[in-house]
Amino acid sequence: MASHIVSSYEDELKYIVRRISEMGGQAERMLEQSVTALVRGDSGLAQSVIADDVILDAAQREVDEKAILTIAKRQPLATDLREIVGAIRISSDLERIGDLAKNIAKRVLAVHNHPQPNQLVRGIEHLSELAIDQLKDVLDAYGTRDHERAQVVRANDEEIDAVYTSIFRELLTYMMEDPRNITACTHLLFSAKNIERIGDHATNIAETIFYIRTGEEMSTDRPKDDRSTTLTQNAVEAAVESAAP
Amino acid sequence: MASHIVSSYEDELKYIVRRISEMGGQAERMLEQSVTALVRGDSGLAQSVIADDVILDAAQREVDEKAILTIAKRQPLATDLREIVGAIRISSDLERIGDLAKNIAKRVLAVHNHPQPNQLVRGIEHLSELAIDQLKDVLDAYGTRDHERAQVVRANDEEIDAVYTSIFRELLTYMMEDPRNITACTHLLFSAKNIERIGDHATNIAETIFYIRTGEEMSTDRPKDDRSTTLTQNAVEAAVESAAP
Repeated sequence: MASHIVSSYEDELKYIVRRISEMGGQAERMLEQSVTALVRGDSGLAQSVIADDVILDAAQREVDEKAILTIAKRQPLATDLREIVGAIRISSDLERIGDLAKNIAKRVLAVHNHPQPNQLVRGIEHLSELAIDQLKDVLDAYGTRDHERAQVVRANDEEIDAVYTSIFRELLTYMMEDPRNITACTHLLFSAKNIERIGDHATNIAETIFYIRTGEEMSTDRPKDDRSTTLTQNAVEAAVESAAP
Repeated sequence: MASHIVSSYEDELKYIVRRISEMGGQAERMLEQSVTALVRGDSGLAQSVIADDVILDAAQREVDEKAILTIAKRQPLATDLREIVGAIRISSDLERIGDLAKNIAKRVLAVHNHPQPNQLVRGIEHLSELAIDQLKDVLDAYGTRDHERAQVVRANDEEIDAVYTSIFRELLTYMMEDPRNITACTHLLFSAKNIERIGDHATNIAETIFYIRTGEEMSTDRPKDDRSTTLTQNAVEAAVESAAP
């Protein structure tokens, strides 16, 4: 009887972990497709990303419910309890990645009515590639509970922040050069910020993997924020002037 | 012995609920202070908001741990289980409200180096007053588990979305009128978006209260998003032209 209970607990955990990995695959796809839609002005693809978000929301609620029931029924201790608490946290991060991708998809129409500089589009594609790599890496690290790989993911988030800050600066420059760029660039700014925040969620997942393996929270002294919050008009104007032909 | 266990479970729940209400008070204060700092350019106040965020993060981790331990130890069923799951969800929303207020506080320096039109400042103050009211109402509704009042809070979020969309439009107009406004207005744009998202978290809390009381999720068909995502350049240019003297 005891072995039956144990095996059934393991089945429940396996099911939850499989659902998390499915959610991860979908979140990755939604980010990839939303940026493709943004870059190509593909409103059909944007619509399909927006529709897919419901599935991710439902998956999160299901994982939450299953996890809570498992805790109540099995009273897992130590590592087992951390596995389940970790699953709840990770599914919440993946659900929010889906929300952010959906928000990018919603901006496709407003952005594509106006031409965007190629360099900018490439910048945003590059930013999203970095975020997708981080997401893939952290989901692989979760699959193998590899907390050292998770630490690498967390350290790599700095690169995303740096690329985002440079896109932020570039977008402001385009707005100053021509007021007709302002609306589209504002939507691109929010899209880039969303991608940067997706990177933060990959970092959160990395921290959860560390917690599952070690029972400790990673130290919280790594600032997740990008540096754009302190960028002043003078700095941007100087950049505009130095970029002038 | 049985009554001892019951009373001790109730003590645990009471403690968690008290911590949530403290977190709510702090999140409210952080939002209020971050907007005051933004409007007055008070960098000292901004620093204190940034510093306070650590306390809210720690409170969330504590509520999470206590809640999970209570579930594992007491195996609560039905309403009791929903109370604890609800507390986990609400503390996560409050923690994120703190993050958003901190992000506003970080923008104070970049914004205040440049003059802002009074009308705009009043718009953002108005937006934050609406969000603070929503937060107060939803925390009161949580205190009395009043799911009807929670439904009112959820319905009121539309007003915040409408005010945000109008501020978004206004900010774009200022940017187009004078490129020297662009950097400060961009930071104000992100600040306004953060306040709008704080409104969404108040809505999430309202939905959680409904879940605690009824065991059902509120229908998900109310769109939380503002309308700014689809605002095109043409619409804004038309507004600029009609506003021209």
